[in-house]
Order: sequence, then structure tokens, then C-alpha cells
Amino acid sequence: MLIALFFIYILAIVSGYVPLVIWHGMGDSCCNPLSIGRIIVDIKHMAPGIYVHSLQIGNDIVEDTENGFFMEVNKQIEIACNIIRNDTQLRNGYNAMGLSQGGQFLRAVAQRCPQPSMKILLSVGGQHQGVFGFPRCNADHSIFCELIRDSINLGVYSNFIQEHVVQAEYWHDSENEPLYIQKSNFLALINHERDVGNLQDKNNLQKLTLFILVMFTKDTMVEPKETEWFGFYAPGNTKKLIPLNESAIYLEDRLGLKEMNDAKKLRFIACPSDHLEFSNEWFMENLMPYINGTYQ
Amino acid sequence: MLIALFFIYILAIVSGYVPLVIWHGMGDSCCNPLSIGRIIVDIKHMAPGIYVHSLQIGNDIVEDTENGFFMEVNKQIEIACNIIRNDTQLRNGYNAMGLSQGGQFLRAVAQRCPQPSMKILLSVGGQHQGVFGFPRCNADHSIFCELIRDSINLGVYSNFIQEHVVQAEYWHDSENEPLYIQKSNFLALINHERDVGNLQDKNNLQKLTLFILVMFTKDTMVEPKETEWFGFYAPGNTKKLIPLNESAIYLEDRLGLKEMNDAKKLRFIACPSDHLEFSNEWFMENLMPYINGTYQ
Repeated sequence: MLIALFFIYILAIVSGYVPLVIWHGMGDSCCNPLSIGRIIVDIKHMAPGIYVHSLQIGNDIVEDTENGFFMEVNKQIEIACNIIRNDTQLRNGYNAMGLSQGGQFLRAVAQRCPQPSMKILLSVGGQHQGVFGFPRCNADHSIFCELIRDSINLGVYSNFIQEHVVQAEYWHDSENEPLYIQKSNFLALINHERDVGNLQDKNNLQKLTLFILVMFTKDTMVEPKETEWFGFYAPGNTKKLIPLNESAIYLEDRLGLKEMNDAKKLRFIACPSDHLEFSNEWFMENLMPYINGTYQ
Repeated sequence: MLIALFFIYILAIVSGYVPLVIWHGMGDSCCNPLSIGRIIVDIKHMAPGIYVHSLQIGNDIVEDTENGFFMEVNKQIEIACNIIRNDTQLRNGYNAMGLSQGGQFLRAVAQRCPQPSMKILLSVGGQHQGVFGFPRCNADHSIFCELIRDSINLGVYSNFIQEHVVQAEYWHDSENEPLYIQKSNFLALINHERDVGNLQDKNNLQKLTLFILVMFTKDTMVEPKETEWFGFYAPGNTKKLIPLNESAIYLEDRLGLKEMNDAKKLRFIACPSDHLEFSNEWFMENLMPYINGTYQ
């Protein structure tokens, strides 16, 4: 067993590939062979010897799955940082790929935990400006969907919900921006809505070599899908969308995203499918180059 | 919305493909876009217009995932039967594909719920003779793995565990066959260990056109992997493996498997990978023909 581990270690060094950390999405786990497992097999096939660490938050895959729904996100980030810090294979730095909510969680890791250093961050359908709608409810703004949203709004920013429902921690009520800014326990923090002046956090994000943002153009799960590119509804509005480069977070450069964009560190990729429903071919063509270092 | 549903309905009829029911594996859900979702996209791409129903046990994907660990299997089968019975698109029959434990669960559906009729059953890594070991513990029969197994054996057949831990319900203690036969709340029932004479259940299984059993030849999750082909350890043994055609269930033809084999209704497929880690190409070549009706 020790010999095998040693062999893997040597192989990973010899391969020359930057190690990869993955954070799964909601309703998934580190080690589901059909989802993350399948992606890892494909990655290792294309980049033999690469070291891949798929984060498990909790003691087993049951806990990992449940925590994706119910564990306070700030605590999850802390756990992830510890796992990454204690993995000696990552000590010289790593790339990171977050699927769906794993995208914004890994951004928080980049902002809060600079050691070891994250190099490229791939956010695949991450909700960087949060969500304001329920899955399958963004198509027609039906009365039913509006009702669900109104119900959620009643309690989503209570302390209890903020500490126990992961998705509430990135719920972004554009019709009541002041409440979101005041009460959001995770998203408003990493987006510097309350503490504009946190330089350390901003500086850490700047250290990324590249920040790749993938948006699914036919996304029916995430509302609005533009959040995957840091876009969101205008304050007080539920229809008008503001892209990143016209948003306050960019114009005030609270996160340093303008600076990163000017330095060509931001890349925006559109995937023509529903949420996370990319094909193997699409993944290989569009994301693999960032993992095996062959990107232009 | 109604027009869209009507259109899908007409398309499904015109397409001529037999509808497909899918049951996910442990730690997964009906609607994980990276796992079952991805497979459905691939299937629909190759068989346009096919109707696919991925079973959700519970009110949402959180419950569905949790139930895969903690809901009594007999209850899950009953729920699945009701869902299938109430789906009018399935009323003329359907094919079924079970991933991992979904394989033995769908076999139970075939045995217990003959209406509407299941035509082809694809068991992809299903554990038809149960399991006797923990994931990643089948490689070397190490002391650690044996200890885990011994600990599990202490309580696995208690009524409480049998009713609340899904995986315990197909735990098959080959060192104590009589205890397994007496206490197993699910597997011993569907394998007719206690009620050899249940003809109805056996007759229902016979109605399948084909029963396809996929085994992963490099499986490190399922012990023994041969259970995926209905093989298992010899009674009183943890090393000697007995294949289906030498086992009691076959020789006594308790399930009609001998009869089905003689009628060439059983097919055994080997997939050269770890558990469920098949490639897209392998799936298309080996399983898709059964879904789109082009098999030989």
C-alpha cells in the first residue's frame, strides 16, 4: 500500500501537471463514480499522472452530500482550507474546479486561504452573484414561481436559515438589496457588500493566474443564469440584468475584478446546454486545456 | 406548458422507442445533471424523442438522496411501483436501467409489480446476491477490512438496522448463511431464500424479454464484484466464489433464472473499469443498443 502511494506520488511529480482540486455541486458528493468520478477518469486519461483531490466535506459521502445542503458555508470553507493545507501534494500550488455552488465556494477558498496558492480557478456554473429563483422557474415568470419566491423571501435572511440552509446563504433578493447586504451570511461577505475595505481578501483573489467563468446559456436551474458570469438583476428589479462590467462590484472594484479583467485574467466561456449538462467533448475542448496547461 | 407536454407526448409515440425507467445508485439522485442527467442527455441524443423517467423516491432530490441510504427498501419498491403505475407514458410497457443498487431494486419491481410490463432490465453493477465487504476493502483481505466486516456483522441483521439502513438490507453474510436467510429484510425475500414456492414473483420475472447483467471487472467498491453477475461466496466461506450456474438459486431454479438462461434471456456483460466508471463510448457501444432496440 505504501509502495503504491509512493509510486502515485512520484508519478504526480514526474507528470508535471499542476494538481487539481475539485468541489462538487449541490446534491452530489466528492466520490460519486457517475459524476465527479467520471470526470476524474476522463481527466486522468488526458493528463496521465495528474494528482486530483475531490473535496469531501464530512466523514463519508453521506455527510458530504448532506453538508452540501445544510452545513453553514463559512464552516465548509474553513474545512476545505484545512483539507487543502494538509494535503502535501498541493503544497506547491494547485488549480481548482468548482461545479455549480462549488464555484463560489472555491472562490471563497481563494480569497480566504492564500496558502498553498490557487493558480487557475475554473468556476463551472457557479453563482457568484447568488440566485433569486427556484430551479425550473426562470422560464416564464409564472405566478407559481413568483409565489415560491415570495414565500422564500419571508424567512431566507433569518439567522437560523442563514446558518442551516446552504442555498439561503447565496440567496440574493434583488428587490430588497439592503436586506441582502445586511443579512446574507456568506455571499455578501465574499462579495464585500458590507466590508468594502477588506484588502487582504481582495489581494488574495488577485493572485490567481486565471479565473475562468463558465455560464450555461440554456440553464433552467439557476436564476438568473448570468450570475455564472457575475451578472445579476439591477437592484430593486427582477427582470433587468446588469452584466459584470456595469455592476457596482466591478465599477468600485471591490474584489479587484476590474483589475483582473484589465490584466486579462478573467475569461468568460459560454456552454450551450442546461446546467452542468456539458458533453465530454465540450469539456475536453473547452476546460481540459486549463487543467493540462495547454491553453492559449 | 400544456402544449409543450402534448408535443413531448406525441414525439415519444412517434419516435417508436420503448420508454426507459432509470433508478439511480447510492449517494446519487434522480436528477443530478452530472450523473443521471448526463446519461439521459446522451440517450436522448442517440434516440431522439425517447421518453425517460428517472425515479425520484421522495419529494425532492434531497429526500431522494437520503432515501437511497435510509429508507426501507421494500417501501422504496412500493413507491417506485406506484410512480411507474401512475405514469401514463409507461402504460404500454417500458425498459428499465438500474445503476448499482438500483439494479436489484428494479429487479424487485419486475418481480412484484407486473403492470405495466417491464421488457428489458439492464442491471449496471447491481448487487443481486448482496454484498459482504466495505467499499475499497476487497483488494487484499487486510486485517482492517476484516475488522470492519466483523463489526458490521454484529448488528447488521437486527430489525432496526434492517429497516433503516438500505445497504444492510442487501448485506449477505456468507459466513452465517442461516442468519442472513432468516433475518434479511429485502435481499433474502427477492431471492426467495425463505419462501421457495412464491410462483407469482418468479413468473413475473420470466416475463422480461431480456435481463442484462453488467459486472465491473475492476470493481473496488462492491465485494464481491461477482454479485453483479449473481455470483457469491460459497456458504461458510469468504474467499471461494460460486458463479450463478453453480449456485443453489440457479440449480433449484428458485427465480427461474435457469429457465431464462436456457431461453437466452440472460446476458452477461463485463465492463473493464471500476464501479460505474464506464466511458461514454462504452455505454453507447454496449448498453445503448438495448435502449434504442438495435441489439442483436
